[in-house]
This record gives sequence, C-alpha cells and structure tokens, in this order.
Amino acid sequence: MSVTHDLEIKTMKAIIQRVTKASVTVGEDQISSIGRGLCVLLGISVEDTQKDVDYMVRKILNLRLFEDENGRAWSRSVMDKELEVLCVSQFTLQCILKGNKPDYHSAMPAELSQPFYNNMLEQMRETYKPELIKDGQFGAMMQVHIQNDGPVTIQLESPAAPTDPKLLSKQEKQQQRKEKTRSKGPSESSREKAALRSKADPSASSGAEGDVSSEREP
Amino acid sequence: MSVTHDLEIKTMKAIIQRVTKASVTVGEDQISSIGRGLCVLLGISVEDTQKDVDYMVRKILNLRLFEDENGRAWSRSVMDKELEVLCVSQFTLQCILKGNKPDYHSAMPAELSQPFYNNMLEQMRETYKPELIKDGQFGAMMQVHIQNDGPVTIQLESPAAPTDPKLLSKQEKQQQRKEKTRSKGPSESSREKAALRSKADPSASSGAEGDVSSEREP
Repeated sequence: MSVTHDLEIKTMKAIIQRVTKASVTVGEDQISSIGRGLCVLLGISVEDTQKDVDYMVRKILNLRLFEDENGRAWSRSVMDKELEVLCVSQFTLQCILKGNKPDYHSAMPAELSQPFYNNMLEQMRETYKPELIKDGQFGAMMQVHIQNDGPVTIQLESPAAPTDPKLLSKQEKQQQRKEKTRSKGPSESSREKAALRSKADPSASSGAEGDVSSEREP
Repeated sequence: MSVTHDLEIKTMKAIIQRVTKASVTVGEDQISSIGRGLCVLLGISVEDTQKDVDYMVRKILNLRLFEDENGRAWSRSVMDKELEVLCVSQFTLQCILKGNKPDYHSAMPAELSQPFYNNMLEQMRETYKPELIKDGQFGAMMQVHIQNDGPVTIQLESPAAPTDPKLLSKQEKQQQRKEKTRSKGPSESSREKAALRSKADPSASSGAEGDVSSEREP
C-alpha cells in the first residue's frame, strides 16, 4: 500500500538568498533587477491557501538577515533597511524525487498558481513599498542572475510548525481572529497540518507509484 | 516542557541550482568558477555522518536536471552531460527561526564541519572527475555569483525518507551491508531517524528556549 504521498504535507517553499544585486533576463532582455536585498525563489504547492501567503509574506519581509548600523549580524530585515526584493516563481521547489528523477505533481498547476502568485506579490507590495518588490516573468524560460552575499541562504516552509512552535500558536490565534471576522478562511488549520505531519510515516510506503513524472518544464 | 528541539531531526541540506555559469569572489579576487552545471549550497548539521555524505554525493551527481539530446527535460544528470559542480559550504541552511531571528545551533561547528566538508568534496571528486568539482573558500566572506538557468532550484535533505521511501529502504540495506564490513558506521539508522521524525510533535512545545541566537556570521 502506497499511502505516504497522500498523507504527505505540502507547503509553500521559498529559498531566500541575501544578495548584493540580482536580475532576470529573458533571451537578450533584462526584464527586472534589484540592488541589495533578497532574491526569493518561491514554490507554491497544490494545497497552499491564503494562510500560507500571509505567513510567507510576513517572514520574507521581517526575517533578520542583515546587520545593523553597528555591524551586528542577524539584526535587521529587508524592510528595516529599505532594501529590495526580487521574487521569482519556482515550481521545481515542489519536487518529489522518484529515484533520481524529479516529479512535480505537488506543484500548483500554472493556471492556478499564476493568479495565486500575483496576489501574493500584490500583498507583499501593499505590506512594504510597491516600488521595492520586483518580479520575474511567470512561466518564461529565465536566467536569474544572483549575487549571493555571504553567502546567506535560508529555506522557508509554511507553516513554520516544526521549527517555530511559539510562532505557530501565535499564528493560529491570529488566524482564528481573522476567521471570525471574514468568511473566506482556509479549510484546514496549522494544527491539523501539524497533526498530519506527525502521522505521516515515510517507512510505511513501498513507493509503488513508479517512475511517473510531470513533464512540466521551467 | 520544550522537547521539540531535542527530538527534531537534523539532516544535511543542499540547495541545488542549475546554472549557465557560477563563480565565487572573495574581495576583488575570483577564486573559483564553472560554466554549465550545478551550484550547490551545502548546510551540514551537528548530527550528520558518512551516511549523509554518501546520500548527498550520490544525489547531487545523479539528479536528472538536464535535458537529453532530443530536448527532453529532466533526463540527464550533471555527470551524464559532463558538466561542472560548484559546491559552497552554507551553514545558514541549518537555520531555525526564533520568531524572525535565525538561530544556527543546529549547524555543525566550523572546526568540525571544515574537515567533514573537505572529505565530502574529495568523495565527490573521486566519484566523478576531480577537475569538474569546484569549491568556495571555507568560512570566508564570499560573493557567490549564480546564473540560475530556468530557473531550476531543488532542495535536498538527507536521508530522503519523506520524499523517497523506496530509496530509503534500498539505502538502509546498503548501509547494513556496509556496517557488517566495517566498524565505523554511524550511530543511528535512517529508520530510527524516520521514527523520531514521525514522533516529533511541533505543537507540544512551548518554544520556551527564548531568543538565544548564535552570533555566527557567514
């Protein structure tokens, strides 16, 4: 019985690289560029909801990856320092390996993830400053030029239950408040996801799904 | 009771970016560069052993992230195409968030991780071709210039239990064979790690460790 894949928790994933500069080219054209700040590669899963967006936007903008005016590391966020963010959609982060072959069925299909992603960018612009949030070209074959400064690279997953239990419970309370005041709340709570996560037993699966891979290209 | 952090599974983590080219500069000097291939940012945890190295080296070299001669995506590995690998140590991937502040206590301390990492590079060179594996400058403040091609970015964690149960059981058998023939086997099996992983209940912790962060810099 292969049940693991059904139970497995799918969350939004982000790779955040602190950069001196970054840009995107499509063919010969540079379509986007930033100076100091963060380059975010963002993988949206089939199960992501507004709650995952809220978490990820908050974390990207508030993570303390920069030094303060006295050179003290891990003290300031991209917002604190008024730096830029280049955000590029990256479905390959939802990769599940079948042996050595990547499978991308966990990624939200492009026709759904494009509006989802645009909405997330919009939320990031509203939360910060619109002119400091840059973008790639959704679905295009891009070259993303990243000058990783340090290097400093952080992986994020929503919700942050396994690494940040304190925040999780705070987040749940916030969410519960939100759900009282509006009706379009997501269908499952972080706690339910966390419970599922702890139930998922990887060794119980035979991996019998075989070598079926999405043929989706970058 | 804050027990989650003790139970939490620490594994080796890698961010693999498919690149058109990549290089490393320290100050004004370019110390390393590759053409087409993979840029690997590698985060070693306090609990990593030879088993994690074996897994990661095999995956990096065999992952099918390139197209074949007919343009079919996800068909060829970096070795199949005789491309290059730039591998850079990146302890920040072992980040645990305390609110918005990164904590790096899960990263293997530099005095241990440097020989561990050099050994891993050596193994990668022996498995592939020494001249096609490039390196950063361990512990230095670097600029890593990455031209991410696609973009295509994959996160890897060792062992791949949650995403690749079939491989896990194969890996365990291999490991058991190895442990019969030599005595320096790692202390815990993948199965034990997986069992621990499923037991760890993030919601059980109060996160009472507070805001103590490592002051380690990149």
